[in-house]
Amino acid sequence: MISLNTSPTVDITSGFWRNYRNLVVDKVLPYQWAVMADEQSAVLPDDPSSGNSFEGNEGHTLRNIEIAAGLVEGHHTGYQFQDSDLYKWLEAAAYALAYRHDDHLRETADRLVDLIAKAQAPDGYLVTLFQIDWPQERFKRLRQSHELYTMGHYIEAAVAYYEVTGNTTALNVACRMADCIDANFGDEEGKIHGVDGHPEIEVALPRLYEATGERRYLDLARFFLHERGRNPDFFDEQFGDGGSGCHMLDVDEFARKYYQIDRPFTGQTTAEGHAVRVVYLCEGAAHVARLTGDEELREAAERLWRNIVRQRMYITGQVGSTHEGEAFTADYDLPNDTMYGESCASVGMAMFARRLLEIEPHGEYADVLEKQLFNGAISGMSLDGSHFYYVNPLEADPVLSARNPDKKHVLTHRAEWFGCSCCPANIARLVASVDRYLYTVHGDTIYAHQFIANTADFGHGIGIEQRGDYPWDGHIEYTVRNLSGEPFRFAVHIPEWSANDYKLTVDGKACDKPVEDGFVVIEIAPGHEDRIVRLDLDMRVKAMEASSRVRVDAGKVAFMRGPVVFCAEAADNAEDLWRYHVPREVRLDADARTEAAYESGLLGGVETITVPARVRGDDEAEPLYHEVEDARMDEATLKLVPYYAWANREDGQMSVWLN
Amino acid sequence: MISLNTSPTVDITSGFWRNYRNLVVDKVLPYQWAVMADEQSAVLPDDPSSGNSFEGNEGHTLRNIEIAAGLVEGHHTGYQFQDSDLYKWLEAAAYALAYRHDDHLRETADRLVDLIAKAQAPDGYLVTLFQIDWPQERFKRLRQSHELYTMGHYIEAAVAYYEVTGNTTALNVACRMADCIDANFGDEEGKIHGVDGHPEIEVALPRLYEATGERRYLDLARFFLHERGRNPDFFDEQFGDGGSGCHMLDVDEFARKYYQIDRPFTGQTTAEGHAVRVVYLCEGAAHVARLTGDEELREAAERLWRNIVRQRMYITGQVGSTHEGEAFTADYDLPNDTMYGESCASVGMAMFARRLLEIEPHGEYADVLEKQLFNGAISGMSLDGSHFYYVNPLEADPVLSARNPDKKHVLTHRAEWFGCSCCPANIARLVASVDRYLYTVHGDTIYAHQFIANTADFGHGIGIEQRGDYPWDGHIEYTVRNLSGEPFRFAVHIPEWSANDYKLTVDGKACDKPVEDGFVVIEIAPGHEDRIVRLDLDMRVKAMEASSRVRVDAGKVAFMRGPVVFCAEAADNAEDLWRYHVPREVRLDADARTEAAYESGLLGGVETITVPARVRGDDEAEPLYHEVEDARMDEATLKLVPYYAWANREDGQMSVWLN
Repeated sequence: MISLNTSPTVDITSGFWRNYRNLVVDKVLPYQWAVMADEQSAVLPDDPSSGNSFEGNEGHTLRNIEIAAGLVEGHHTGYQFQDSDLYKWLEAAAYALAYRHDDHLRETADRLVDLIAKAQAPDGYLVTLFQIDWPQERFKRLRQSHELYTMGHYIEAAVAYYEVTGNTTALNVACRMADCIDANFGDEEGKIHGVDGHPEIEVALPRLYEATGERRYLDLARFFLHERGRNPDFFDEQFGDGGSGCHMLDVDEFARKYYQIDRPFTGQTTAEGHAVRVVYLCEGAAHVARLTGDEELREAAERLWRNIVRQRMYITGQVGSTHEGEAFTADYDLPNDTMYGESCASVGMAMFARRLLEIEPHGEYADVLEKQLFNGAISGMSLDGSHFYYVNPLEADPVLSARNPDKKHVLTHRAEWFGCSCCPANIARLVASVDRYLYTVHGDTIYAHQFIANTADFGHGIGIEQRGDYPWDGHIEYTVRNLSGEPFRFAVHIPEWSANDYKLTVDGKACDKPVEDGFVVIEIAPGHEDRIVRLDLDMRVKAMEASSRVRVDAGKVAFMRGPVVFCAEAADNAEDLWRYHVPREVRLDADARTEAAYESGLLGGVETITVPARVRGDDEAEPLYHEVEDARMDEATLKLVPYYAWANREDGQMSVWLN
Repeated sequence: MISLNTSPTVDITSGFWRNYRNLVVDKVLPYQWAVMADEQSAVLPDDPSSGNSFEGNEGHTLRNIEIAAGLVEGHHTGYQFQDSDLYKWLEAAAYALAYRHDDHLRETADRLVDLIAKAQAPDGYLVTLFQIDWPQERFKRLRQSHELYTMGHYIEAAVAYYEVTGNTTALNVACRMADCIDANFGDEEGKIHGVDGHPEIEVALPRLYEATGERRYLDLARFFLHERGRNPDFFDEQFGDGGSGCHMLDVDEFARKYYQIDRPFTGQTTAEGHAVRVVYLCEGAAHVARLTGDEELREAAERLWRNIVRQRMYITGQVGSTHEGEAFTADYDLPNDTMYGESCASVGMAMFARRLLEIEPHGEYADVLEKQLFNGAISGMSLDGSHFYYVNPLEADPVLSARNPDKKHVLTHRAEWFGCSCCPANIARLVASVDRYLYTVHGDTIYAHQFIANTADFGHGIGIEQRGDYPWDGHIEYTVRNLSGEPFRFAVHIPEWSANDYKLTVDGKACDKPVEDGFVVIEIAPGHEDRIVRLDLDMRVKAMEASSRVRVDAGKVAFMRGPVVFCAEAADNAEDLWRYHVPREVRLDADARTEAAYESGLLGGVETITVPARVRGDDEAEPLYHEVEDARMDEATLKLVPYYAWANREDGQMSVWLN
């Protein structure tokens, strides 16, 4: 059987994604670097009167590393995990350098790697807060210290940077970090039997193992996954000697569930606590499960996936139903206006989906990955690449965000930066590495599970070219080349949303092979003729409803076209959005009664949907409460834009779910 | 013109209210006394396994006074305003003694008054926290000290106790308190130009003025009302010397709006900040406005009334849309499931309405007072008189209260007590004094604005007997006696909810006098014949909707019958409440399509409403999101019970607004 390259070289040709990826190189990375290197003035005037002010949001991120490296003097600034923002930037830069030659970016990144190497302690440890100000607290306040989280992000970045650029310094620093962690944590006597309050090292170590072949790293990841929750008292026991005096380490505001340590990870049945922590933990578990064959880990990861995706995820892919603890709450509890839906959690869900696809190519994983890519994850970044969401609501109103404290975390405009800036760089690294999310190879089968146009080289003379104007156009064309001399199989994804209505042809002939778990598998014999596979997806406008178990969406409707979820914004619609009512006939036959059109001048070029609606006008004399009247509803239309593009115009109401 | 007694002797005969009032004497007052006097075991076993536990909720309220009186030694326990719970109890006891001879209660109250007198400082000051532990901070931390609030509650209690029992010690203590405050606060140089963070003294002082005739007290109240917000920096300036070291005094978590000091009270146009504070402030302003003729105060109070009642009040009368700051938010922002709706705020709204009625008898004041009496205020107490709500939601779900932190303040069972127990005694004093809320006298006119059966003696041989089984029966009968030798006028309230459909007869003849601002005025000539006035109110079941400006109630319906708002509870309805849908034809013709019936064995005897509905069954296989289907709805019925009686059975979902 042919041995396919599981990491093809993929060149993204999709216009939609090239825009985003160019934005990452041209705007996002320079912008983020400037903030983190305290060069804000280079990208944005610090002008409070314009709303542009970095006061209190100064990065000082690079400076912490410079201090740790002995280049300047001072105290640590920012969060305990401040270093990780820079590492995520480095990881994003690595991916960017794979598709864009940029000497300046390369030099900046190389210099950063050298600086990091200089900052690393002799034993491999590297977390600047502890090196600079709290050396005596190293690994002693793991509930909140984020030490393994921070180093994990460096390790991920280093692996990516090494893979793309061959920079061995970067990789060596990562190995020394992992060695340091390995020397301090483990089952053996004398080592710490515990975990970090924020999963991430579990994600990083298997990547380092794959890059180096060093089995210890994989074993260490597996140790952390099984250690988590084995001793639910671990964090409390660490505090047995009293507080550290460092406020950010001593906080204990959340329950054990928040950290997923109330019980062993493999015994967890529902997604509980801080959403990003859960999703990262699952991603690591899925990766380690694949590499080690650990069925317990796999089952736990798959169980939590099902719980998240089938009971606790918004239609746009976000997860995290409450601001308090940025956390999951209960099955089917999906409030749209007080929710959290952190960008990082959506990015994490995309990564988790990819790891599960690598275990077994179920269609559901591909569908959710697509949902994140076209909705929940990219909604975290503005179209100009320099404004970001941490919280992604499905319903927003600037008046209520300003005046009802239960909604004060809901911004109706993306912010320039955050004191806690995990999200901006996380989105950047997802966008810059989206080429790594399109194909999954199992044995002799290439699963093409995303419709993002690209050319991919799998080696052995095997190549796939994918063309189309997705997500606006549902016509996808694949040219499949097999000069390897051996047969392989090409699996085309049929998304769940198109399962009942799609057309697939191979070399012009209808393909009637069955869809198996979201894929149609086509045999590709070796030969000099390119094979042409054409797929037409169901691009009807669809009126969607939530399960009747979702209380807040009862009687509401949301519109989708292809993978894209739409929303109504005040910029396009005159009245309060809740005054609109989508009539029953439109709900039941949405495609025939709505109009979808591509508007090249709007929001960087988007499809819009025009929905016939009825609207109840405002009547100043209407009493606050009164007997039900057969109220006059005027004919009207609602104009909808893609959810990911919301809040790129003037401040106003937004709603995904419509009455 | 006849000079009518503005404070008639009223004996409540209404079965509905006699039950509540007997409960106050037989259960509520002994129960609350036991908690505050640390005699919990007398009323309830401290048994954590049964859910009955006072741990952490010990009252120690009486003990603080004993310490201040020098009878025992120790430190103050509880909140800075802990004393006020005992004062509200004393006030409720005073009202109770007016309708129930109870030697034990009288002796307990007399002893308490003597103890309080002993605890009072030589200069009249009495707040036990400061006397015991923080004497140097007296009047120096007014933002959070609640000193005038606490003394204000004593003054109210003392006035009531003096009025009912003639106990002059009680009144003297109150006068000495007021003198102390007068000596420390005022426009004069050397006095404090500032206010208390929590309005209440503004309510108390005009009452003391009325009881004593001492004009200084009224002037002092007026000073506080005009001083509030004159210097928005006052609280901050008090902290210019640094913190007191007393945590509960140093907190500064809320903005100036919370305390209504961001601008002068007379310049406030919308109800902002802590709801109870606003409502108390308005009550005091209305009272002082009437007594002094201060038009500015009157206008401000009436302006805020209109804003609250027409834009910011729930259909059940509650106010306060958010837990954070227990506060008002924005016009028409009335979320049902994350709201606050504090019992004290509803009690305060009833008091505010009464004061406005005393200025001018508008029907709206009477309607809102009635709404509070039959809904928002009494919902704060269980039918057994020993469980209380601080927060009164219009939608609740025990699962979400337990698992979504945004709803953790929403209890689905009333609690036995609270660490901060302002509400239980507040409800008790309203219920015990409800006889004072039925009539308002203006000149030669008696306004009978509530339909609670009673016999009232206005002196001069003028008496009114009111009979009926309200709120279940809409037939009200008045026997009006006038042996005074002079004519007077009897004004019968026609509630807004019955304005279009009522029948009024006088001595058997239809009365066709017009309704003027909610009242029909009947001349009562002197004579030996009783006049018989019969009123039949519109007791149709009504489907109510909110103004289209209320986002969260769009497409929803609530049911009322008479003044009573109904709700659906899980105890009577099998499915998740949001699965029910009230068909359009039922909404539009609710009375004909629903059934109302009195059930004597249910919840102490209540009317119930049975509503034909359609219900969408649960389908385990239904995906979380899917294309809209013409879902099968099964015929069903919803059974509704009065809102005030909710949460007296097993824990379960509740909703006032139905889809």
